[in-house]
Formats: sequence, C-alpha cells, structure tokens
Amino acid sequence: MSSDKKALIQPRTLKGFRDFLPALALPREEMIDKARRVFRSYGFVPIDTPALEYSEILLGKGGDEADKQMYRFQDHGGRDVALRFDLTIPFARFAAQHLHNLGTPFKRYHIGPVWRGENTQHGRYREFCQCDFDTIGTGANNADIETGLVIHDLMVALGFERFAIHVNNRRILNGLLEQLQLGAKATQVLRALDKLQKIGEEKVAQEMQEGAGLTPDQARLILEVVQLKGDNAAILDQLQTRLSTCEGAMQGIADLRQLQTSFSALGIPTERLQIDVSIARGLDYYTGTVYETLLGDLPGIGSVCSGGRYDNLAELYTKQHLPGVGASLGLDRLLAAMEELGLIAATAGNTAQILITCFEAQASVNFLALGRRLRQADLNTELYPEATGLGKQLKYADRKGFSIALIGGPDELAKGVWQVKHLREGTSTEVADADLIDYLKRVLSHP
Amino acid sequence: MSSDKKALIQPRTLKGFRDFLPALALPREEMIDKARRVFRSYGFVPIDTPALEYSEILLGKGGDEADKQMYRFQDHGGRDVALRFDLTIPFARFAAQHLHNLGTPFKRYHIGPVWRGENTQHGRYREFCQCDFDTIGTGANNADIETGLVIHDLMVALGFERFAIHVNNRRILNGLLEQLQLGAKATQVLRALDKLQKIGEEKVAQEMQEGAGLTPDQARLILEVVQLKGDNAAILDQLQTRLSTCEGAMQGIADLRQLQTSFSALGIPTERLQIDVSIARGLDYYTGTVYETLLGDLPGIGSVCSGGRYDNLAELYTKQHLPGVGASLGLDRLLAAMEELGLIAATAGNTAQILITCFEAQASVNFLALGRRLRQADLNTELYPEATGLGKQLKYADRKGFSIALIGGPDELAKGVWQVKHLREGTSTEVADADLIDYLKRVLSHP
Repeated sequence: MSSDKKALIQPRTLKGFRDFLPALALPREEMIDKARRVFRSYGFVPIDTPALEYSEILLGKGGDEADKQMYRFQDHGGRDVALRFDLTIPFARFAAQHLHNLGTPFKRYHIGPVWRGENTQHGRYREFCQCDFDTIGTGANNADIETGLVIHDLMVALGFERFAIHVNNRRILNGLLEQLQLGAKATQVLRALDKLQKIGEEKVAQEMQEGAGLTPDQARLILEVVQLKGDNAAILDQLQTRLSTCEGAMQGIADLRQLQTSFSALGIPTERLQIDVSIARGLDYYTGTVYETLLGDLPGIGSVCSGGRYDNLAELYTKQHLPGVGASLGLDRLLAAMEELGLIAATAGNTAQILITCFEAQASVNFLALGRRLRQADLNTELYPEATGLGKQLKYADRKGFSIALIGGPDELAKGVWQVKHLREGTSTEVADADLIDYLKRVLSHP
Repeated sequence: MSSDKKALIQPRTLKGFRDFLPALALPREEMIDKARRVFRSYGFVPIDTPALEYSEILLGKGGDEADKQMYRFQDHGGRDVALRFDLTIPFARFAAQHLHNLGTPFKRYHIGPVWRGENTQHGRYREFCQCDFDTIGTGANNADIETGLVIHDLMVALGFERFAIHVNNRRILNGLLEQLQLGAKATQVLRALDKLQKIGEEKVAQEMQEGAGLTPDQARLILEVVQLKGDNAAILDQLQTRLSTCEGAMQGIADLRQLQTSFSALGIPTERLQIDVSIARGLDYYTGTVYETLLGDLPGIGSVCSGGRYDNLAELYTKQHLPGVGASLGLDRLLAAMEELGLIAATAGNTAQILITCFEAQASVNFLALGRRLRQADLNTELYPEATGLGKQLKYADRKGFSIALIGGPDELAKGVWQVKHLREGTSTEVADADLIDYLKRVLSHP
C-alpha cells in the first residue's frame, strides 16, 4: 500500500444475504449430494439455466408478488434483465426452447440459487437455494406416484424417520365447490382455506362468509370435508360418497387411491402418507395431485417439500402442451431443521479426520509422503503446513475437530513408527509405519 | 388463457449466457464431485458467499478491467450492489470478516458461478463456474508443495494422464530484473513476457526494447533465462549460478527445488512437473510460487489450472496479514477439452441404465415395486410413466441411451419372469424375477 493512512473497506454482506461457513457449507453440500443420488436413482437428469434472464421472460404473466421482489436492472447493452426468483419459470422457458430436441417424457432436477428482494423478517433470506424436480410431458398418474416416492426417499436419505407427506388432489376441492355452486368464488374460498393451519377453523369460516359471501352452512360443509379424519382409505371412501356426482372429483379420488395403494404395496410406513383435503397450495398453478411434507419433530416450520401436478408448464413460451408433476425440496429450511434437531454433527465443519503434525522442514517430505499414502487408502488427511510448536498444532487439531493427530518427530522417524494421538480420548499409542493404514482404518471405522 | 390471440414470449437466453442440457450438466456435476473429493482428501473445507455484494467491496482497488465488466446496479433499498466477478475478492472479504473465528491456517474451496459482462467473442461466456482452493495464514512452502499436489490429483481424478504443471517463482523473475537494474521497469517487462507463448521470442524482445527501453543485450539475457531448457534440476542449477548474488531469487530457487524433490520423492511422473521461468501470471498479485497447467493433448487451450502464492490476501478489508497460496480449476475450459478429446461418454446425459417399460395401468404397482427393489440394490432405474405402445417406449429408451429395458407384459407377469432387452446388442433374454437383481448387476458391471 502506498499509504498507511488508506482506509479499510468494511467487510460486510448485504442485508438478507449470508456467508456459508464450513460448519454449514459442508452439511449443505452433503444434503445436495444425497438429493442428487435420489433424483438420479429414478432417472432424473440435471439441467442448469442462467442466473440472469430477460425480464420479459421472468415476468411471465406479471403482477405477482414475486415480480415486485425481482432484482431487475439494465445490463451494459441496455437490456432489461433480472435475476431468476425461482427455478420454475426458467424451466418453462427451457422446456419451450429445448424440449423438441430432448423429447418427452422429460425428468429433470435443478439445484441452484434464486434471488428475491423480500422482507427479511422471520429469518428469510434474499438468496437461497432451490432444489426442484419435475416429470413433464405426461399426464400419467404413475408420475404422480413416483413424485411421492421421490419425496419419501429424499426425506429418508437426508436422515429423517418421522415425517408425513400430505397429499390432496385439486380436483376434489374443485368438485366440492362446483357441487356447492361456488365455482366462481373458488379463488376467495381457497385463499381462506390456505390459512387453516395458521388461523384456525373459526376464522377461516368467518373469512369465507364475510370475504366470499358463503352461507354459514356452506362454510361449515367445506370445512367439514377438508378436515375429514380417519385412515387414508376411510377418507377416500367418504369423499367418494359425498362427491359421487362430480366426475372431476371422482378422477382425483381414484388417482389418490392409486397413490395410496401403491405406497402400501411398496411397504412405505403408513404414517408417512396422509390424505389431507385441506391442502390447496396456491390458487392458479396446480390442477391435480398436490404435496406437502411435514416433519414429525418440527411440524411448526411448515412444509419442507411441496409441489403438485400442473396442466401446462410453458404456455407463455410455446404452443406445445406440457402437463407435468414435480416438487421442490426446501434445502435451507431443512438445514435449519437439522441444526435444531441436532442432526448435524459437531465436527461437520471438517472434511478430514486425520492431521499429520509437522516437524523440522527438512523432514517434511516424510509428512507429505505419509499424507499421500493415506489419501490413496481413502483416508482424508490434512498436513499442518508449518514446522511450529507441537502444542500449537494440537490446539489447531482440537479446534477443527480432527479425530487423530499423527506425530513423527525425530525419535519416531528413527524407529520407523508414528505416534497416534486420539484427540477425543486424550490417549496415544505407537504404531509401526507398515501397520499404520490398517490401524487407522480400524479405529476410524469403529470410533 | 383468456384469449387465443395472446402472443407467446420468445424463449431465449441472454447473449453470453447458456443453458446446460443434461448431456453437459451431468458431466459437469461429476467433475465438480471429483474436484470436491480431492479438495476434501487434503482437508480443504467448503465455503459459500453471496452472488450479490456491495459494489464497494467488489470494486476493491478499482481500475481493473474486471470492474468495467461488473454487473452493477441499485437494489430496492438504493444500495449500490454488483454480482461477483470472481471468487477471490469475496474470499478476501470473507477472510477479513470471519477468520478471527475460524483461525489459521485456513484451507477452503469454493465452487460457484461468477459473472462478467465481457466480450463474447472467442466463445467466452458471461456466466461461468469458478472452482478455487486456497491455504491462507501460512507462508510455509509445504502449502505451496501441497497446492501442486492438489492440482496433480485434480487432473488425475478428472481422467487426464498427459498434463504438465508448469511452476515458477516470482522472486526469480524479480531477482533477475534487479540484477539487471530493471526493477523500475518490471511491469512493462513482465507484460511483454506474458505474451511469449502467443507472439514468440522475437516480438517480445522488440516490445521490451521499444516499450520498456531495454538494450538488445538485456532483452536477450532475460529471454535466455526464462527459456532455460533441460530437466528441472538442471534448470534450477543454472538459475542458482546466474542469480547467486540475489537473496530473494535464491529463496525462490530453494522453494522450487523443494517442490521438485518432493514431487520426485512422492513418485509423481517426472513429465508432470515442469520448471518454467517464463511464467509470470499477472503483474501485481502473486509474489512466490506460480502455477499453470497444460494438457499434453490440447496445449493450445491454455492453462486449465492456475494460481500462485500471494503476500496479503485481504489488505483492503483488514489489518490482519494473510499470506496464502492457491489455484483455480478452469472447469468450463476443461469440460470443453473433455468434449473435444472424447472423454465424455455418449450416454453422459443419462443417470439410469435401466428402463422399466409400462403395461396396462392396473399392473403398474408391479413396475413401481420392481423400480423400488432395483434402486434399493443401487441400480438406478427409470419407469416409463405411461402404459403406451412398447415400440414408443423402446424408442425412448434408445434415444436416451439406456442399456437395458425390462419388459413385464401379462405373459411375463404370469410366469414370474422379466424379459431383459439389451438395447445396444439388440438381444433379449428371460430372467426369473428372483434372479433379476443378480443378473442385472452382473451384466451392467461387465457390459
């Protein structure tokens, strides 16, 4: 620096944005790896799209809350551009542009950041990771069933045992409203219904009457149907009886029943699938099966994996009719849940379990060579780079959460042994160089 | 849609931006996985930083080419913000902000997109993925040696056999210029030298004389030293003789020699490390070891992994002195190289090798159940969702590059067998349901 007086720039992130330190970045990477393995096991393939797109593309129909939250600006070439705020619209644009080459059915997953300049209250971030998967170009209910199975396998792969996938079919709600001759008021009624978990039955009934002009009987009937209790088969039976005159609803019920019997036949624990007629999931988009996933140990954080079937993905961009079904895994919400439930290990911020300590720089080729041997035996190993005091090196090892420190001072090198220090137990043992890999594999696999 | 006349929005991406279709997205994901495994094996830990930062942070010293290319705008709160154009400046800011908590030495990797509104000629993209790793908080040469080893292991993990890591030490060039009393002209001389590969010896000599005012003898001497030939030890010996009066250069030579002897002792093939005194890698930033990596089969695409040692990472943001060393893997460049060298399999766009074909929807639980069994046996399996004509399903299987299609029509189901169709060979065989997993594992591991 030319002048010592030069002011430092304050290191800080923007409001609503955050750094991922290793203790969070590593478990997040591992979650993404696990999600990918599940997607791939079903034949979903990855795609990626640009973070920046023409605003015209992202605005789509316009008028949504999301549009106001878009990071939108002019680029150097005077183009009106914006950062994507979800992965759905870019996928619709992608499908319109490429699907004639890729063909249908097309099963893709897409994991990446999106940006929304929303209110940062309630711990919301303006940059977060979305993790979407969809099967498009087919209306077959098998794709709906598989979507449920993928959600199930995702949750299990991420380490959750107690969770419930709540499913509904939008045709049931539509049928119910039709039967009550309330089709024209669907939007208001569904908007009220969406608040059921938050504000409770009484207030929803009130909103249906005051906002949508329903009679008390109509409101009561709707609330009764959407809160049908019992096991899944019993709920479906009751729906079938009540909605037998409505063809659309009957198809929705049949599809849900097939999903339910498939889950049963595949041996999925009963409590993990819950028919829940109260789920609407937004107003316009979904047209068939809808999904929400609640954690048994933390239901209050809301759905961690949601989605549904839609009729036409890309109608704004192409004449090709593209029905599909998919869902989105709430990675960041799940990560927060895992932290809260203690599912993230204290050592999560480290990638290696073994630290090789370093003595007199002249001998360092021995340490470099040992590191190489251990890595070739699939043992992740870090070498402390400086030949500094052993105490300082061991303090570093403790702080970073290594399991084992290997010490090879002049005495050990002369004898052809390594001192193996078990950092958590505070014990030490001498192991011959030739036996070291076997020894480490044994102790690290059975800690 | 309310009106059929509504115009479609043209689906397109911005100039310089691109979609990743599965055939490219999948090998890219696999490259990133492999790179991560190498980083982790050395104890590097992941971090992530926001895509958007205060412009003040990203502009740093200002005046660079990169600054002009920044995507910079005002956000909703009137903040002057920009998209990151590399991962180095965000890391410097991150280090200044968090390193007092994380401690040193600190070894991190960071893989993510960056944005530069640069000229899109020569196949450059405005959004590309960077893949950086650094060891900071230590000046120890062991970290420089390990940086070279990580580069080596990355290349091997990505499937390259023929490559050379070219290394130099900036102190050697600095010493040479000092000795010639050309220290004041270092910038111009190094700028000319940087063009050696592109424009050749003669034009560089001309530029040194005309641009920097060197005598023909000075230019000749510099070009002679930077082009010393022979094996690595011989080059180092010659440098030592020529620069013996310059302490800084002697330290640089000693560090390179230790790197060279360590690579030898670890059994790294000789041709993979090349002392190359002509490498300067930019003008200001690097102060010690520098690295460039060339592909033996495609040297023309330039360095695919480059980096070096620097004195002080975060001086703009903190008084903490943070020396370090690191490098950046050119993922997208390598991906292009792998395409050109035929290292990306034709089936790269698929994640599953097995397609279960679908018959009459009533039987679909059989197909769902088979998919589940195969996945539980670690066989990635896709189910064709629709009970449509077999010909259509097999055409889909061919197009997507599946190895095997499983056919379970009414006859097969009744007999308890599956027809296994080997799509590449065009052969079929019947396998009993109970033997299917063993059979598939056998044929898929030995195609």
